[in-house]
Amino acid sequence: MSKALWSLAWEKGTLVLLDQTKLPDEITYIRCKDYREVGKAIYRLAVRGAPAIGVAAAYAMVLALQEITAKGLHGEERSAAFQKAGSELIDARPTAVNLSWAVSRMLKAFEGLPEETALEKLTSLAQAIEEEDKSTCDAIADHGADLFKGKDHLRILTHCNTGALATAGIGTAFGVIYRLHERGQLERVYADETRPLLQGARLTGTELMQNGIPCSLITDNMAGWVMKEKKIDAVIVGADRIAANGDAANKVGTYSLSILCAFHHIPFYIAAPFSTFDFSISSGEEIRIEERNPEEVRQIKGFYTAPKDMPVFNPAFDVAPHSLITGIITEKGVLKPPYDVAIKNYERSLQ
Amino acid sequence: MSKALWSLAWEKGTLVLLDQTKLPDEITYIRCKDYREVGKAIYRLAVRGAPAIGVAAAYAMVLALQEITAKGLHGEERSAAFQKAGSELIDARPTAVNLSWAVSRMLKAFEGLPEETALEKLTSLAQAIEEEDKSTCDAIADHGADLFKGKDHLRILTHCNTGALATAGIGTAFGVIYRLHERGQLERVYADETRPLLQGARLTGTELMQNGIPCSLITDNMAGWVMKEKKIDAVIVGADRIAANGDAANKVGTYSLSILCAFHHIPFYIAAPFSTFDFSISSGEEIRIEERNPEEVRQIKGFYTAPKDMPVFNPAFDVAPHSLITGIITEKGVLKPPYDVAIKNYERSLQ
Repeated sequence: MSKALWSLAWEKGTLVLLDQTKLPDEITYIRCKDYREVGKAIYRLAVRGAPAIGVAAAYAMVLALQEITAKGLHGEERSAAFQKAGSELIDARPTAVNLSWAVSRMLKAFEGLPEETALEKLTSLAQAIEEEDKSTCDAIADHGADLFKGKDHLRILTHCNTGALATAGIGTAFGVIYRLHERGQLERVYADETRPLLQGARLTGTELMQNGIPCSLITDNMAGWVMKEKKIDAVIVGADRIAANGDAANKVGTYSLSILCAFHHIPFYIAAPFSTFDFSISSGEEIRIEERNPEEVRQIKGFYTAPKDMPVFNPAFDVAPHSLITGIITEKGVLKPPYDVAIKNYERSLQ
Repeated sequence: MSKALWSLAWEKGTLVLLDQTKLPDEITYIRCKDYREVGKAIYRLAVRGAPAIGVAAAYAMVLALQEITAKGLHGEERSAAFQKAGSELIDARPTAVNLSWAVSRMLKAFEGLPEETALEKLTSLAQAIEEEDKSTCDAIADHGADLFKGKDHLRILTHCNTGALATAGIGTAFGVIYRLHERGQLERVYADETRPLLQGARLTGTELMQNGIPCSLITDNMAGWVMKEKKIDAVIVGADRIAANGDAANKVGTYSLSILCAFHHIPFYIAAPFSTFDFSISSGEEIRIEERNPEEVRQIKGFYTAPKDMPVFNPAFDVAPHSLITGIITEKGVLKPPYDVAIKNYERSLQ
């Protein structure tokens, strides 16, 4: 894969992030030496996509430890400062579970590590998390593409961005699409532009065009009509948090897509790493949905598209109910309903 | 109703149109003395909304006759020139039936009229069409609001713009909403922004705020989640062409809304004048769907939101199937399914 654009890189004690808010107009990188800068970048979506946020947060924790070490903090003071950094990072995006998952892994690894080697060990762990994400993406792509064995001229619809910009690898849902393209089974991808922040148009559009994948951009409200008129074979999207029963939180619009798929008898797949599961919650009802700034809806690129004082409802995510999800494509294979049983079987297989 | 904004006005042989493409930023009027200018204004959506297009087209035919008369054309030459103007106008928006309906009425009235009085008579007819539209809007508002008798705290979702800017009166779907607000039954309107051209954000947003109607702006992909989370009581939208079986073409996104309503058991109403029916077509399958310029999707206000060369699918309309429409609110009353029977009964009542 020609990975012309990448979401993040670790360079000698600095986390380099592509500022995705500037795409497709400008390719600008942010060099973060302070974990707070990473938190801000996550909050304002300069880095976004659940898996990429997880990797960025792991490196942000390394930056936090660099600062704590430079300040000469020890013992409980050191530990408290490290935990505080973790909490600050998690607050940046409350819905994406990969963020708290990565921070928790770093916090857990930190416990009991001798002060002298902690920085080195945690840097290695962040790098391991990044590498894991790459291989996870590849495995998701393979498992997902295998669902369509023997089929060609596939027409796939996707939402938001789940590619190289959303992960450290080739992507989740986008990875499956890319693999189908590699295997010559893909006729066309229909990409929702994904208002309000247009990740589909700006990011997925850029990734599709750079990789020479046949595609059409549509506005979000066209998805139903496209399903009917273009005979879509499957909808594949990512996820930011999946409950133990399979309910999947993802970019707002996903809930509607799952219903439109059910109506048209089109398979609706979620593609996400296992780290997206939050087994602490039994259903999507418990997922806290982040509401963002009304200006995201009232403005586009700084221009008002609506009255400046018009009230706005701006949930960043919604939840596709497990009953409408055909399968959840993970790096371990494709989970099929009933998801609570599938997940328990998987957990049992690990014991 | 404080009708601060109006879509069109006839002033001494000139058709004045509000340039709706400039809203909400600028209030600019276009003074048309040539029917071709009206055709261009219809094409580029400076004037839009099926009923307003019908009224504008009627006046455009008066402008055409003014030109033909000034040129001193007579007999068949005069007749051919008038018919040509009609065809040119109809071509501007192939989906909106009110356009061809108004042009046909003017052509039919023209036949057999003495040359000396034709201009005066046709001007009066265009004015009558405008007045009819105003009273039609009022009747639609009454019939629509009557559907909700005894209910209050209503939460209504709407799409695109169907108010004073889309008609010569208070609107179709918007008229119903306005009447419910007058009657104190409305809690809140959720307005889809309606990509690509944002008529919901720009136009409905402006009309809701100017009339002090409690409202929230949402992106189109939030509609499903809003239905679930905000417990929407009804969705009411307009229509551009309705087939004899009740299938209704309207702004793209309407098809998806009809499905989302069915899933949530929310009544889905079409509000439109009887002139929106096209009895020459038996179903929505026969409605020609206008595909518009890809730049509408790739750009917002001249700024690219996607790669400049990304292919686009841009249908301006889609068709809500009659099976998902709870009722069609017209100036004669509310039609209920089966629509073919309801329409035949209505026609019989006229005989």
